[in-house]
This record gives sequence, C-alpha cells and structure tokens, in this order.
Amino acid sequence: MRNDEQQIRELLATWIRASKAGDTATVLSLMTDDALFLVPGQAPFGRQMFAAAAEGQQQARMEIDGDSEVLEIQIAGDWAYMLTRLTVTVRQGPAAPVVRSGHTMTVLARRGGRWLLHRDANLLVTVPPQTAA
Amino acid sequence: MRNDEQQIRELLATWIRASKAGDTATVLSLMTDDALFLVPGQAPFGRQMFAAAAEGQQQARMEIDGDSEVLEIQIAGDWAYMLTRLTVTVRQGPAAPVVRSGHTMTVLARRGGRWLLHRDANLLVTVPPQTAA
Repeated sequence: MRNDEQQIRELLATWIRASKAGDTATVLSLMTDDALFLVPGQAPFGRQMFAAAAEGQQQARMEIDGDSEVLEIQIAGDWAYMLTRLTVTVRQGPAAPVVRSGHTMTVLARRGGRWLLHRDANLLVTVPPQTAA
Repeated sequence: MRNDEQQIRELLATWIRASKAGDTATVLSLMTDDALFLVPGQAPFGRQMFAAAAEGQQQARMEIDGDSEVLEIQIAGDWAYMLTRLTVTVRQGPAAPVVRSGHTMTVLARRGGRWLLHRDANLLVTVPPQTAA
C-alpha cells in the first residue's frame, strides 16, 4: 500500500539515487517550480541555481554519495514535513573525499497528486578529515 | 481580525521580546512539549536543553537582541511553516558584540487553539566582526 509516507520515502530515495547518478533532470522533477533551498551562510536559492550547481559538480567530475535516515514525517493534507539525518560524501579525482553530515528539515507539497520537495533547510557541516575515515 | 497568520507573527514577536527580556518562562510557553531545535553541527535538541541554554545565558549576563523579518507563512489546518530572516546580537560585558545572521525555517502546530513552535531549523552564522558594525 503506497500511502503518503511511503511516497515521501520513495521521493527521498529517488533523489539520492539520481544525485549519485548525476541525473539532474530527475532531481529537478522531484521539486516544485518555486522550490527554495536554505543553507547556512547563503541567501535562499531556487531551482535554477540548484541546477547550475549540479551542472558544476558534473563538469568538475565530482562523485556524490549519500546516506540518509528518515527521523520523522508528518503529513497535513497536501503538505508534509520531514526530518532526516544525512551524510553526503563528495569525491573528486585523487583528493581525499569531503564528507558533510548533519540534519535536514524539508517541507513537501502534493501537487497534481505527486509529493514534491518545496522547502529544504540543510544543516550539514563538513566532518573534519581525521574523523571522516 | 486575528487570523492564523497574524497569530503566528505575534508568536514570533513575543518570542523575540521575551528572549530580549531574559523571560525564559514565556519563551518556553510558546513551544510544544516535544519541540525540537536543529542547528548546524549539533544533534537536534528539545525543550529541556533549550531551557538550560537560556539559563546559562542569563547566568553569564548575556544580553540578547533580535531582529526578524517574516519571509513566508504557509498554513495547512493545524500545521504551518514559516521562513524568516533573523539577526541576533549577543552582548556580554565590555566584549565586542557577537552578531549571528541568516534564516530560519520553523514548523508550527496549533494545539488547544494556540499556535506553538514545534520544529525549528536555525541556519544563522556568525557575521565577521569587521562587517558587524
């Protein structure tokens, strides 16, 4: 039974899988047109800047790996929020991988029957290399 | 007419006013019992740790000032989310004030007819002193 929570978990799994594969088109299909991303120390940015950053990672031949754990999903009609614990590893050539770890808080919206990412607060910080084993 | 959005704006204004006044009891009355706070580089923490931190600030005679701008409020039944731009200034004795600035994303819940803070992602970063004029 594909209930709402299950669909949201699948959205997250697809997002991470597509990010690993460098499949930006799929990632963009998982967010609303007016999605906003919040990260520390930067102005909120939208879909276009997200796409440009993903393109930059592709061109720089960065390999992205991600590991997520859903901590909470709460649904209210066509809106939901989700908390996750997330670790992202970025490899680029022979350099030591950069590991970022922490939590995310996401607002999702159901549009046209599909759950989509709408607001995403990313609180990940870089893990010091000596502990990033 | 005190609609939901107005009540949420008042919650935020009361929160900041009480924080400035060191009135921790009032701040605690504005959050759910199971509220969670997310900040970069830390595990999510709840009401008790929030209270302990506020108590520590009082004991250290820190003076808190805050300035907020609501960027978005979206309401869905008994749930809502809010984005703000927030600047917090902490003064302690003769030392230069520490200014933290950035955005917050908050999930609010209506319980017993009152809007309360339920999940709060705080993405503020310290503003370098030379630009904190």
